[in-house]
Amino acid sequence: MKLADKGENYLLKRLRSRFGRKSPGLILGVGDDAAVVAPSAGHMLLTSDLMAEGVHFDLRWTTPYQLGFKLVSVNVSDIYAMGGKPEFMLIAFSAPGDFTLDEFEDFFDGVSKASVLYGVTLVGGDISSSGSLNLSATVTGYSEGKPLLRSGARPGDFIYVTGHPGDSACGLELLKKMKRPIPDRKREVSGMRPIFRDSLRIMRRHVMPVAVKPDRFIGHATAMMDISDGLMMDLSRLCLQSGAGARIYTDKLPLSKELITASAYLGKDPVDLALAGGEDYELLFTSASKKIAGATPVGEIIRSGFHIIDKDGAERIMRGKGYQHFAS
Amino acid sequence: MKLADKGENYLLKRLRSRFGRKSPGLILGVGDDAAVVAPSAGHMLLTSDLMAEGVHFDLRWTTPYQLGFKLVSVNVSDIYAMGGKPEFMLIAFSAPGDFTLDEFEDFFDGVSKASVLYGVTLVGGDISSSGSLNLSATVTGYSEGKPLLRSGARPGDFIYVTGHPGDSACGLELLKKMKRPIPDRKREVSGMRPIFRDSLRIMRRHVMPVAVKPDRFIGHATAMMDISDGLMMDLSRLCLQSGAGARIYTDKLPLSKELITASAYLGKDPVDLALAGGEDYELLFTSASKKIAGATPVGEIIRSGFHIIDKDGAERIMRGKGYQHFAS
Repeated sequence: MKLADKGENYLLKRLRSRFGRKSPGLILGVGDDAAVVAPSAGHMLLTSDLMAEGVHFDLRWTTPYQLGFKLVSVNVSDIYAMGGKPEFMLIAFSAPGDFTLDEFEDFFDGVSKASVLYGVTLVGGDISSSGSLNLSATVTGYSEGKPLLRSGARPGDFIYVTGHPGDSACGLELLKKMKRPIPDRKREVSGMRPIFRDSLRIMRRHVMPVAVKPDRFIGHATAMMDISDGLMMDLSRLCLQSGAGARIYTDKLPLSKELITASAYLGKDPVDLALAGGEDYELLFTSASKKIAGATPVGEIIRSGFHIIDKDGAERIMRGKGYQHFAS
Repeated sequence: MKLADKGENYLLKRLRSRFGRKSPGLILGVGDDAAVVAPSAGHMLLTSDLMAEGVHFDLRWTTPYQLGFKLVSVNVSDIYAMGGKPEFMLIAFSAPGDFTLDEFEDFFDGVSKASVLYGVTLVGGDISSSGSLNLSATVTGYSEGKPLLRSGARPGDFIYVTGHPGDSACGLELLKKMKRPIPDRKREVSGMRPIFRDSLRIMRRHVMPVAVKPDRFIGHATAMMDISDGLMMDLSRLCLQSGAGARIYTDKLPLSKELITASAYLGKDPVDLALAGGEDYELLFTSASKKIAGATPVGEIIRSGFHIIDKDGAERIMRGKGYQHFAS
């Protein structure tokens, strides 16, 4: 059964029945011209992120369920990166007419799974046919205290990252070789080649990233953002907004075991992947504190300039600095 | 100069300099992970609408400037349709790498023009490369009183429309024949064929619709929505939500002079265009009042059933009931 066989009215009805639940602060959800909400007190946060087929994802190795989950995660990640809590969400969904009804339902299963995880409520959006699969979402949120901006870093602050930068980019390279989605079931894993089976966690980090809650860093951080276009690219943006520079030590980067193994298999430099690989959706923040549980210090903020120091103390030259759209 | 020659960082910088202005309620706009705003008191409204190339528009007869203007209008129209005032906006913009920098600037000129007209502030969004031009926006708004829902219509209420339904659909049919955008300058109009020159207003209604302010109807209306998928389709949705039926009199439809002339040229029935043509972005509302300045009564709400009464009193059979995505 394809979407072209059902029509928009049927799909809207399905969404109303799936996402019509009551939720705190929601006065009127999916089904009218606009949603009516009563947002929580505090500073209100607004963010939109889009995912375009052929640019952000490839359906050969990404399932609609994973896409739905990831669309929510990447938007929630922006709210978390401000030190906020996500609250309401709208989704603009456009797909070719031969997208199946099952795929449509799977996509919204993934949206639903992530919505419950983050405590965010789908309140509206738009659905349309289009030439390729194009997804965007808007998430609102709030921060009880002052939001954490990119502009607050000061010389002498330490630079922290959560998780393992590079995992997502390395996971993507593996998916391109595997040429199919990671299996949903345990028993399918047993037939996989060892290099893929042992790298499941980093492939999952690419297709179903889980956004990182900022709560335990809020009291410490002076500036914060999420890493979506690569640690170097995003750190350079944070430095630009803060009017400062940075020094990063490559031997301090928290490289994962899977990243080291898989990058050897791929013939890639794991440090390059950690510095320039995109879509980590980890948090990057600065703080005057020398040690913070749950995050790794990788360098420090300086007055100006941008230095990557190798393990032997030499300055490293980056081949690619990270991802930017439209860059040739 | 193409977008692929400039890169995302340059484009973001351009947007920050264009839309970085101070505005009431805006604490932090374009440039961080999320915008920080202080929305006005009242019920908060949230809406998202998308426009996909090849489905919602054709660049052969639509300019980027018109697209930018229309994207804002269709979203503001949803806020107006709730009896609200628009406030903040996010735009998710994705385009092929060969989209030019001039086209990009023209698009945001149109966004800017409409933003000033409606008093809405662009506070964030996302830009990306993609296979085709895909645009979506989210607009927030507020209503001081109770929002006007689709569900408030009661048997005995009169059905009102603003403006001239069908103009936009007829304008689109003319644009498909003219195969180029309507001219921006007066002197270019003189060389046009008379049928196109005399229909400029309805072609403009299609490519640059102006959303209709609800202010003078708010005290009267029991239910309200905007007409985006055709009067019949949208009225049937309003009736469904209100648990009621409707009777429409075709001789009461406010057909414009241009619609009558152009539909004769096109060999189309002007009443069909007014009933089933999409993208009017006029307001459709119900009221117990028999006469309301600025809107035309076209029928009444009844207990159940859906009747279109012709000028000779016979029931009219509709060939196409309006637009729905994915409908075959």
